[in-house]
Amino acid sequence: MAELGQKVDLVEETPWAWSEDLLDINPSGELPVLVPPEDTPVAGAYAISEYLNELGLAQTSDAGGLFPGSAFERAEIRRLVDWFLNKFEREVARDLIETKVISLLAPAHGVPPNAETLRAVRHNLKYHLRYVDHLAHTRDWLAGPRLSFADMAAAGQLSVVDYLGDIDWEQHPSAKSWYMRLKSRPAFRSLLTDRLSVLPPHPSYTDLDF
Amino acid sequence: MAELGQKVDLVEETPWAWSEDLLDINPSGELPVLVPPEDTPVAGAYAISEYLNELGLAQTSDAGGLFPGSAFERAEIRRLVDWFLNKFEREVARDLIETKVISLLAPAHGVPPNAETLRAVRHNLKYHLRYVDHLAHTRDWLAGPRLSFADMAAAGQLSVVDYLGDIDWEQHPSAKSWYMRLKSRPAFRSLLTDRLSVLPPHPSYTDLDF
Repeated sequence: MAELGQKVDLVEETPWAWSEDLLDINPSGELPVLVPPEDTPVAGAYAISEYLNELGLAQTSDAGGLFPGSAFERAEIRRLVDWFLNKFEREVARDLIETKVISLLAPAHGVPPNAETLRAVRHNLKYHLRYVDHLAHTRDWLAGPRLSFADMAAAGQLSVVDYLGDIDWEQHPSAKSWYMRLKSRPAFRSLLTDRLSVLPPHPSYTDLDF
Repeated sequence: MAELGQKVDLVEETPWAWSEDLLDINPSGELPVLVPPEDTPVAGAYAISEYLNELGLAQTSDAGGLFPGSAFERAEIRRLVDWFLNKFEREVARDLIETKVISLLAPAHGVPPNAETLRAVRHNLKYHLRYVDHLAHTRDWLAGPRLSFADMAAAGQLSVVDYLGDIDWEQHPSAKSWYMRLKSRPAFRSLLTDRLSVLPPHPSYTDLDF
């Protein structure tokens, strides 16, 4: 939203607690949800990003919006958005967050850390980091010559993993240089001050020269 | 594609076998992939549906295209597309297909049927069927007054589960009447002749009055 020059009031939710208030707004009980001032709530990153795109808000940023380019270039952005929001989520982020974060924040809803799960997640993470490294090596931004929602989706997922200290950036120099450029953007930097009450970030998490 | 009046040549793939040909077209190794005659492949249902929408193809069907309506109505369609392609996939379809289909077709890649997994899947399936029943009871089509890609996404997932005989339609009369209307559409009927070599469909699978 900051990349698009849009102000939002953030509200913290705990989706694992299956709250009635959140279920009223989004029956799936999932995040994110956007509540526009004079419209019905828009639920999920897919619906939100396309809604902002259709309203033309996504065309207002310096970077050319969330989905810049031709129909094919936009298809490539969406392929990668799907990759990070769904494939990466399923193969890395979900288990990592359940075992390392929710198990601390709300033990009744999380899954205790488990060596087998963490081994599988780290194996999958290497494959994803190699792919980000490959994309960042061959393109200016992940989906092509311009910053897009693919970079936001990837960086959003990777920043959570980075907070937990699970990324070996030295092994993935092109991914690292891509991530350094994103971290330095004004819109991204404010996110880096977010903290979990139960767990401090990995020491290099907020470093712009990590 | 048939709803949009578009002809396609279908090619069968076995994504669980991690084939090099498929990986060349879609690095995630997942389906579906659309290969337009004079363009680069478009990978994944999300990118494909929005690509067709942007080309205007999605506006040509009798039913008003894949994403009819206002920006908010389209956000509601996309919320439900995401629900069925990702949430339903994760909570029901993936485990069901791995244990009941891939384990027969390609034992080395599937997971043998397991009582605990199947119990969890059936529990989740009831919740999803109640939700479809609720939507179909309160609206003409799942996302609102017009047929949309939300109906296609839901019907695509549910038809797989129905093939396997796991849907108790009698308990969900509004969902049943919605699904009967979809099954009767010319575009949908041809899909019902698809067969797995290793497993015949449940007897009522192709019945239009099931």
